[in-house]
Amino acid sequence: MTAVAQRWIASFSAALARGDAKAAAELFEPDGYWRDLVAFTGTLHTSEGRASIRSTLDRTLAAASPTSWTLTGESPARDGCLIRFETRLGRGIGHLRLREGRAWTLLTALRELKGHEEPAGPRRIQYVSNSRARAKPYVVIVGGGQGGIALGARLKRLGVPALIVEKKARAGDSWRQRYKSLCLHDPVWYDHLPYIPFPDHWPVFSPKDRIADWLEMYVRVMELDYWTSTECLNARPVDGAWQVDVLRAGQPVTLHPTHLVLATGMSGFPSLPAVKGSGAKVLHSSQFGDGAEYRGKKALVVGSSTSAHDIAADLHASGADVTMLQRASTIVVRSQSLLELAWGRLYSEQALAAGISTDIADLTLASVPFRELPKLQKPLYDEIARRDADLYAGLMRAGFLHDMGEDGSGLHSIYLRRGAGYYIDVGASQMIIDGRIKLKHGTVAALDGSRAILSGGDALPADLVVFATGYGNMGEWAAKLISPEVAGRVGPVWGLGSNTKNDPGPWVGELRNMWKPTKQPNLWFHGGNLMQSRHYSLYLALQLKMRQLGGH
Amino acid sequence: MTAVAQRWIASFSAALARGDAKAAAELFEPDGYWRDLVAFTGTLHTSEGRASIRSTLDRTLAAASPTSWTLTGESPARDGCLIRFETRLGRGIGHLRLREGRAWTLLTALRELKGHEEPAGPRRIQYVSNSRARAKPYVVIVGGGQGGIALGARLKRLGVPALIVEKKARAGDSWRQRYKSLCLHDPVWYDHLPYIPFPDHWPVFSPKDRIADWLEMYVRVMELDYWTSTECLNARPVDGAWQVDVLRAGQPVTLHPTHLVLATGMSGFPSLPAVKGSGAKVLHSSQFGDGAEYRGKKALVVGSSTSAHDIAADLHASGADVTMLQRASTIVVRSQSLLELAWGRLYSEQALAAGISTDIADLTLASVPFRELPKLQKPLYDEIARRDADLYAGLMRAGFLHDMGEDGSGLHSIYLRRGAGYYIDVGASQMIIDGRIKLKHGTVAALDGSRAILSGGDALPADLVVFATGYGNMGEWAAKLISPEVAGRVGPVWGLGSNTKNDPGPWVGELRNMWKPTKQPNLWFHGGNLMQSRHYSLYLALQLKMRQLGGH
Repeated sequence: MTAVAQRWIASFSAALARGDAKAAAELFEPDGYWRDLVAFTGTLHTSEGRASIRSTLDRTLAAASPTSWTLTGESPARDGCLIRFETRLGRGIGHLRLREGRAWTLLTALRELKGHEEPAGPRRIQYVSNSRARAKPYVVIVGGGQGGIALGARLKRLGVPALIVEKKARAGDSWRQRYKSLCLHDPVWYDHLPYIPFPDHWPVFSPKDRIADWLEMYVRVMELDYWTSTECLNARPVDGAWQVDVLRAGQPVTLHPTHLVLATGMSGFPSLPAVKGSGAKVLHSSQFGDGAEYRGKKALVVGSSTSAHDIAADLHASGADVTMLQRASTIVVRSQSLLELAWGRLYSEQALAAGISTDIADLTLASVPFRELPKLQKPLYDEIARRDADLYAGLMRAGFLHDMGEDGSGLHSIYLRRGAGYYIDVGASQMIIDGRIKLKHGTVAALDGSRAILSGGDALPADLVVFATGYGNMGEWAAKLISPEVAGRVGPVWGLGSNTKNDPGPWVGELRNMWKPTKQPNLWFHGGNLMQSRHYSLYLALQLKMRQLGGH
Repeated sequence: MTAVAQRWIASFSAALARGDAKAAAELFEPDGYWRDLVAFTGTLHTSEGRASIRSTLDRTLAAASPTSWTLTGESPARDGCLIRFETRLGRGIGHLRLREGRAWTLLTALRELKGHEEPAGPRRIQYVSNSRARAKPYVVIVGGGQGGIALGARLKRLGVPALIVEKKARAGDSWRQRYKSLCLHDPVWYDHLPYIPFPDHWPVFSPKDRIADWLEMYVRVMELDYWTSTECLNARPVDGAWQVDVLRAGQPVTLHPTHLVLATGMSGFPSLPAVKGSGAKVLHSSQFGDGAEYRGKKALVVGSSTSAHDIAADLHASGADVTMLQRASTIVVRSQSLLELAWGRLYSEQALAAGISTDIADLTLASVPFRELPKLQKPLYDEIARRDADLYAGLMRAGFLHDMGEDGSGLHSIYLRRGAGYYIDVGASQMIIDGRIKLKHGTVAALDGSRAILSGGDALPADLVVFATGYGNMGEWAAKLISPEVAGRVGPVWGLGSNTKNDPGPWVGELRNMWKPTKQPNLWFHGGNLMQSRHYSLYLALQLKMRQLGGH
């Protein structure tokens, strides 16, 4: 394996050294992939197929001037080889999958800029002063959840002055203020922030308050510039930079950063349908607190994704009479099956014991081309369907509509396509199967005193209606904070253009507008789950650092 | 090396298995050492010489029933071999130094109790609830500095209900409220708390506020039971347990723990000599804040250890006219020389790169018998004296009395003997050499208006006198909080009994009364620097856990 890889790298490196993009591209399979994270292209870019690879190389090779290609060895994930290389500006690592001597996938990722390495480990300084003078922010990050915080930490270590503004009163409130029973649905190994891993006694699935407190301490010990109780009112592009008006604890402040990052999260714009009439208390899932308030009450939960299940289970456990209203078929997968069959290979104690650090896991995940992901994921969900046949049969008997995604590619795909549409089962599915959570189809169309009128015309008694009906697109933030024109120019944020439900084409090859330049100069989007916040914050931070160095 | 070690372990293990303490002891050099941390002796105990080793084995072997001795390999510190073994109750690790086939030093250390392992890594649980119910404390820890906090974290992971009471308003205040210019004098690799290492961009020498904030966040994310603004008024032994009266935010509360740990620190009882007359402002070093308040003033700093130097340097840099009053010869060593020649072998980036984890470094340090330490340290300080001859010549010219300890064994020895008497030079020595900090000998005997009268009879103009004259013994806390009788029975706390200044004999072989049972049942002392707080908290926590399990 490594001998073949050694030869491949020698040929690739030689072709690049003589500027022969054609020869380099021919070392790939005809339909091979090259994903680059900032090292060559300066951005996040996937080249699909030889022609695309060649044209990307033609465009980037001279400026990148890559050298010193070295095979580090086979990945401990036993899924390709790890590589190191340098470019004119920096040092990178890579991941290579070969099939019969040709590259099926190559990932190249910039890791640090020469002369601007993070002052860590052997480069740490001896002393800092006790004073904490603040520079004028070069970057303003709107939103202080895990996305804003992880990016803030990366920029801090890179010496890029950045200010995070957070509407809520405390860092972590975006978690703290969610419904009481919320636990992470992703396992702990997947969720670390950069630089300070969670202590190793943390449970596999942390409760929300623990994450909230961790974020709050992280802001403090990483000494981030972080303004709480600060709402971003609007942002205007001015002379290639930004004028950002914020309200800090009630006082207007105007900021003048060069770059603006919207890290406002996927949960900014609750989708709360208009409901005619009056009667039951109506909440969006983001407003729901504690099931204990509804003991003995009749509750309807509209929706069948994660929050709908969590809230219905909490209400049931608290002694409410709960009916879930399902609007559309939903992906349901048992948490334990995901742990064992999906996450476990890269993110688990077993993976750690095999030498797969969080960093290698992230790199391996990043190396899978988005176009290939569904094909690679499908067998895993086929296996889950067999293994958990009892669950799916029970759900079917209970009338719950479930699937594995329109192409059977499961949860990870649908998350990338539309960030919603699934439930990782930690117990609510059995409540549905048992009838402890009742099930109906449709939604609530109107309220009529003590009754809720469903879209199909039926009426149900209801004291509480919770719309766990999700959120609008992250791009709406651009419309709200900047202007509809800018939002329109930028286009949709998130999604791949897979031409599946809620993810219309064209195909992009990367997540749309995430962590990369947009059509609006110096406007960026950052976010996603804890893993994405950790991993992609580095590449966004490097892009910002390069601009700071270049005087942009 | 490892073959010889392999044979030694086979012989040792066989002798122990057949209960042959004599044969086991003969595998040591006649003057060999065996240090045990809780694995055999249930406490911290050093056996010096074959007869002592044999008698300790005779006393402990049957109960310990050690088995499964395994050579892990040569230590990455290239200073002996690492070992694993089991006892009836737990699993341990060890460190072995052989000379010509015989053991010069053996360390055995209990690491976990079978069936009561910390629920971490592969043993982590899947879920915890969001609630934080508190059990009645089995242990009350008085003092919430690094000692109390590290022990609290260990006990938390071991499932021993523990409550930390801290007089000050916030965790970390014991650091936060010290003089403004304070930075750690020990390097960062030496200073980690258990479980959550500092991020790797932290400077080699952290400013005090950073440590303070870290301690505060640590209490929070480790979810310790920690009462701030809570003063311990007194503690009484009652029926083999304790009645502890505290004032929590002004309200009296009585606690009934089984065990009482005094983690009140070395800085509890400022030594502030009586000064006749009146005039200059008089402060103990623990009350000094910021030199900037004394710009243009005449200041006397009495003492020549760390805080005296730091405060004099701060005053000088702030524009005061400073005279240091030296009372006795002091160990002075350049920080950089200590980094390179003393700490660096075990605690540095180079050590980490060589595979010497913090844990292995701690184990290696613990494996050196206290009796051997001065002999091993002396050559190092001889080397420092040669290397920094310019510094010492300069100090001599300036009239500053310095030495390398009475036996030339330097700073680490004197720290263990009396916890004071040295300065790690980060710049103040050059100020003394240059005359920017003036130097006199003696102390301040009286004040007379604008003048201070020195012990030798001279008078100096003075607006400020800072007594950087150290602290009383930690044992004074027992007298104050419990009773003089109990304090008398327990005897001195800290020190080795080396028969050097301020450390009268008899020789003990371990630090007196630290981290081990005292003559007062269920009374313990814990503390020291960050390294000791990290390392010894484990062994104290295991001793407490064993008592909890045994129903004590």
